[in-house]
Amino acid sequence: MKVILVGAGPGDEGLITLKGVEAIKNADVIVYDDLIGEKLLKYAKTGSELIYVGKRKGKHSYKQEEINEILIDKAKENKNVVRLKGGDSFVFGRGGEEVLALKKEGIEYEMIPGITSSISVPEIFGIPVTHRKVATSFTVVTGHEAGDKTEKEMQVKLSELNADTIVILMGITTLEKHVKELLKNPKRNENTPVAILMDGTRENQRMVKGNLSNIVEKAKLENVCPPGIIIVGNVVDVL
Amino acid sequence: MKVILVGAGPGDEGLITLKGVEAIKNADVIVYDDLIGEKLLKYAKTGSELIYVGKRKGKHSYKQEEINEILIDKAKENKNVVRLKGGDSFVFGRGGEEVLALKKEGIEYEMIPGITSSISVPEIFGIPVTHRKVATSFTVVTGHEAGDKTEKEMQVKLSELNADTIVILMGITTLEKHVKELLKNPKRNENTPVAILMDGTRENQRMVKGNLSNIVEKAKLENVCPPGIIIVGNVVDVL
Ligand SMILES: C[S@@+](CC[C@H](N)C(=O)[O-])C[C@H]1O[C@@H](n2cnc3c(N)ncnc32)[C@H](O)[C@@H]1O
Ligand SMILES: C[S@@+](CC[C@H](N)C(=O)[O-])C[C@H]1O[C@@H](n2cnc3c(N)ncnc32)[C@H](O)[C@@H]1O
Repeated sequence: MKVILVGAGPGDEGLITLKGVEAIKNADVIVYDDLIGEKLLKYAKTGSELIYVGKRKGKHSYKQEEINEILIDKAKENKNVVRLKGGDSFVFGRGGEEVLALKKEGIEYEMIPGITSSISVPEIFGIPVTHRKVATSFTVVTGHEAGDKTEKEMQVKLSELNADTIVILMGITTLEKHVKELLKNPKRNENTPVAILMDGTRENQRMVKGNLSNIVEKAKLENVCPPGIIIVGNVVDVL
Repeated sequence: MKVILVGAGPGDEGLITLKGVEAIKNADVIVYDDLIGEKLLKYAKTGSELIYVGKRKGKHSYKQEEINEILIDKAKENKNVVRLKGGDSFVFGRGGEEVLALKKEGIEYEMIPGITSSISVPEIFGIPVTHRKVATSFTVVTGHEAGDKTEKEMQVKLSELNADTIVILMGITTLEKHVKELLKNPKRNENTPVAILMDGTRENQRMVKGNLSNIVEKAKLENVCPPGIIIVGNVVDVL
């Protein structure tokens, strides 16, 4: 039996792939960790085992090693396992770590890509990550607000990123720091457009737009909060 | 009536979203331009108008302005129009130009994101664009082999891109030039892993792996040809 890592998309339940739904339907065990996954459990077959491994107030929260263990154990019980993740498993989804753990045990795996929030959320708000003569490159980077990560893991500084469009995930609570770093790069200045996109593709989605000189202030006024994406560059105003 | 821009995914017909299929089913007119789109036409309702606007040997090939015109005309005829594109419409898909043309005419539009080849094709080959402690940023950039584009449109040089992972689209035929540029950046050296991924998620998919010192030679030996993706960085060897 094998483990299939399925990308669930950014939140709108219509943004999972046909293959992803098929995998959920055939799964004996579904290991999921957020609300996106939860909405998709309606496709699970009767009797399938549903294991929640996400963070919930007051509940035990699973370490990555524990999740790996569950995947391995269930696969060894000869079960068809689906690991359901928000967005795409390989975009800050720790999918690679799970694959490594499975490979170590000789367990077969398959990837079913998902719609990543990093491109699709801007898209839903009418912001293209690339646009002819405006942006021919885009960089997706983590802003590292997750508590278990260290500064050292940030391999490249935001100030060093030269792509035309910069998309920052997990950066909302540390916005001010990122804005300062971004301004150190001569490609950008106080007028460079920025948008903060919250809960994209969900009912409560919300956008705050500004530029590098006023976005920190605006974010405070508008009570910006995670989960959200920061997108920086001329594409923000192109459409 | 409105125009819906639908991302068709990288080639595997199971990698379109549920929403994408729904839009195709409801469309009066479907404007498509490649083989991915063609496979998905089976979802079109009887009597829907299917307009091919891609490039085919010996046939008239449509300019972007002509495609815009078709979308506008059909929408004005009060038709539900779907514009079907490979991957995601906003990743070097010229979706932004179509949206601008529609907006100018006051025509309503909607985006349905697609699975972009830039992340999903590496994923299918077991290459994660991000990986904890190996790559916390990735850049997607065009290599500009398309004949109608000028060098000036390339806003950033590959040598200036500092993200941990670099994904180059449309760069296969100009590989040698890109390798030279990449090597000018001190973050990379002759041992930096590279993979070329062709026809990803399709039956004939193929990968050529090497490093910045030998990939040009290997590509020649293996008859590398478009469409393909070049991916550069330590993630290539991480799983
Ligand atoms: C741990 S990362 C996982 C990303 C996911 N694998 C993907 O491809 O979208 C979680 C971050 O993704 C971003 N994110 C995910 N879904 C989002 C949404 N619907 N709206 C805005 N941001 C979102 C936020 O920056 C959030 O902190
Ligand atoms: C004009 S761009 C469009 C990209 C598309 N919008 C997307 O998001 O994937 C076309 C380029 O995408 C890449 N590409 C698209 N599909 C691919 C596939 N299945 N395998 C490898 N490369 C692919 C190639 O670099 C190709 O030259």
